[in-house]
Amino acid sequence: MRLRGVGQNIVCQMVVDLDDVLVDAESLQRFVAAVLEAVGITREDAAITADVLVTADLTGHESHGVARLEGQYVRPVQTGQIRAGGGLVTVRETAATLVLDADNGLGHPAAKHAMDRCIAKARDAGTCVAVVRRSNHYGIAGYYPMMAAAQDMIGVCCTTAGALVVPTGGRTMLLGTNPLAFAAPARRNRPFMLDMATSVVPIGKVEVKARRNTPLPLGWAVDGTGQPTTDAAEVLERTFGDMTGGLVPLGGLEAGHKGFGLAAMVDILSGVLAGAQVSLHVREAMGSGHGAGVGHLVAAIDIAAFFDSVDEFKDAMDTYIDELHAAPRAPGTDRIRVAGEPEFEAKEHHLRTGLPLHAGVAASLQKLGQELQVPPFVLLG
Amino acid sequence: MRLRGVGQNIVCQMVVDLDDVLVDAESLQRFVAAVLEAVGITREDAAITADVLVTADLTGHESHGVARLEGQYVRPVQTGQIRAGGGLVTVRETAATLVLDADNGLGHPAAKHAMDRCIAKARDAGTCVAVVRRSNHYGIAGYYPMMAAAQDMIGVCCTTAGALVVPTGGRTMLLGTNPLAFAAPARRNRPFMLDMATSVVPIGKVEVKARRNTPLPLGWAVDGTGQPTTDAAEVLERTFGDMTGGLVPLGGLEAGHKGFGLAAMVDILSGVLAGAQVSLHVREAMGSGHGAGVGHLVAAIDIAAFFDSVDEFKDAMDTYIDELHAAPRAPGTDRIRVAGEPEFEAKEHHLRTGLPLHAGVAASLQKLGQELQVPPFVLLG
Repeated sequence: MRLRGVGQNIVCQMVVDLDDVLVDAESLQRFVAAVLEAVGITREDAAITADVLVTADLTGHESHGVARLEGQYVRPVQTGQIRAGGGLVTVRETAATLVLDADNGLGHPAAKHAMDRCIAKARDAGTCVAVVRRSNHYGIAGYYPMMAAAQDMIGVCCTTAGALVVPTGGRTMLLGTNPLAFAAPARRNRPFMLDMATSVVPIGKVEVKARRNTPLPLGWAVDGTGQPTTDAAEVLERTFGDMTGGLVPLGGLEAGHKGFGLAAMVDILSGVLAGAQVSLHVREAMGSGHGAGVGHLVAAIDIAAFFDSVDEFKDAMDTYIDELHAAPRAPGTDRIRVAGEPEFEAKEHHLRTGLPLHAGVAASLQKLGQELQVPPFVLLG
Repeated sequence: MRLRGVGQNIVCQMVVDLDDVLVDAESLQRFVAAVLEAVGITREDAAITADVLVTADLTGHESHGVARLEGQYVRPVQTGQIRAGGGLVTVRETAATLVLDADNGLGHPAAKHAMDRCIAKARDAGTCVAVVRRSNHYGIAGYYPMMAAAQDMIGVCCTTAGALVVPTGGRTMLLGTNPLAFAAPARRNRPFMLDMATSVVPIGKVEVKARRNTPLPLGWAVDGTGQPTTDAAEVLERTFGDMTGGLVPLGGLEAGHKGFGLAAMVDILSGVLAGAQVSLHVREAMGSGHGAGVGHLVAAIDIAAFFDSVDEFKDAMDTYIDELHAAPRAPGTDRIRVAGEPEFEAKEHHLRTGLPLHAGVAASLQKLGQELQVPPFVLLG
């Protein structure tokens, strides 16, 4: 499934590729968890990781979903590059802060447990900031702030990531796409949920252009000399090569210094403050065989500390979101979408109709299942 | 003074307009404070406001500096639209949160006092989030996180502001330029300090284009139908008119939904969570004669809660900043500038050579001084 363009009227339109197969999401999630357990991940951590990965596919972020299972998680666990038994160690703690060490385990359970503890501490102190060091890729950033929103809190989350982005005035990859995620609950409306890379586009969009042999819009990427380029294949190649050129920070050629600033802020919060690798060193660290040394920051703000009743906040959120929805629209716009709505609509749609998975991805997952003696997941229709 | 383009070699180059006069910054600051005292602001709050305003000019943000003194602060205080005697009332408090009410006083002292208290609480709890409601425009956002950085903390700040920005798919002004500011200290290097509007450009840049009768780059603004426009004068006119059209969120035509998301996040944090007006209603509130009802959020994270020694963090910051500085550069780039450096360099330069002020601004300030029987500030050379 790929979210292609915008919807019509109220219902977001999903386009199913001819080479997609429809799978049962629940069955897929059980499968992913079983695969992870088969390589030594604990039952609890496997379930968490499976939930984060399948949620990515359900919400339309297939680039962060089950397609990554084998290459990014299963094989690194098997070779010991990611520790199967990684537990979360508390390094330091105050009333409203936590420093955690993921012991080179999977990033998903590390971030999930960090947010759980953050929420509990915020319930007492009003707010809490937790950092995680020595972690790994944790999938979609938006998953973790949504945990806070479900507990009537505001959630924030960011992470370091392998360098792909060129700082303003530079010509090499120095920054990760360093996502920033934020969620806040409403009452009638769905939560506000922002999950954004701090680059103009994620690398996945360049991959799509390269695959289709279409030029990049000017402003997405620069070449090895730091000049704007439209050559998708070359940008992609350099990503795995000399790491010159790369993605342009959010703001593009006009205001890229702002995206540069945001990406560096994420490096400082989830890298420097966490005592973890900043983006520039994540890939080297991966090459070292001791995990990526990725850092995360999660934070929770308890809305109950700000109002007599949480509903005061939620009602004001509804009014705010309603006013955005009701705003006069430019021609060609069916409605104004508030952050998170495309994801929630995709998820609701897929839970109703089944989850489209690229046939190739589905086939290699089933093959991986055979190898690890895990029963296959259910194909629909 | 206007920061025009980039510097040469190491020293940032400042261009002084022919119609600028050079003033002594210290004398100007005393003058501004005396003017504010003359209309009933307390000595302490007048000194704070003067410091924030002159710091804006010193750091190259003249759009937020002393040029605003009369229209945005002095006259509204005289007419009672902003309360002269406004004190900061504590509405609610937990170990790591604060809800404050500025009682419709000036925004600068409100935000300054809020950050002072936030820093003190973060010293105990490890972190603190404070919101301020019923406040007014507080000048440059970066001032407040820099207070935290000076106390070995990470500082965060954001504020609601009058609507000027059009949400993605819309055609009317619904969001403020809603700035987001962040600062973190280093040891050898200057602090990292990001202070950015969440629109592609601030309205000041459109004003400059309109004044010079040059077209806007495509992607800065949309017209009353929501289509991209290059007509600076029209955009500006609508700002004071029917509020159709307006600035495009950060990310521009390609990725403006991200800037829309960031601007809405700022509205939620400093508007909804603060129990204050969101940007859409700031202007109406101003028109009501009871102040703008602006909200702020300030937060401090105590670095000492994360490391054995704060120097561990500061040294890692230095390494990070050094690596950004040392990165290979695109042709035509003299060096890679980290967030805050243009501001700090401008300030150092102006403290050495005097502060250039537009002659017209200087003249009307002196006239205001005469009216309020405040001795004039010192012109240099």
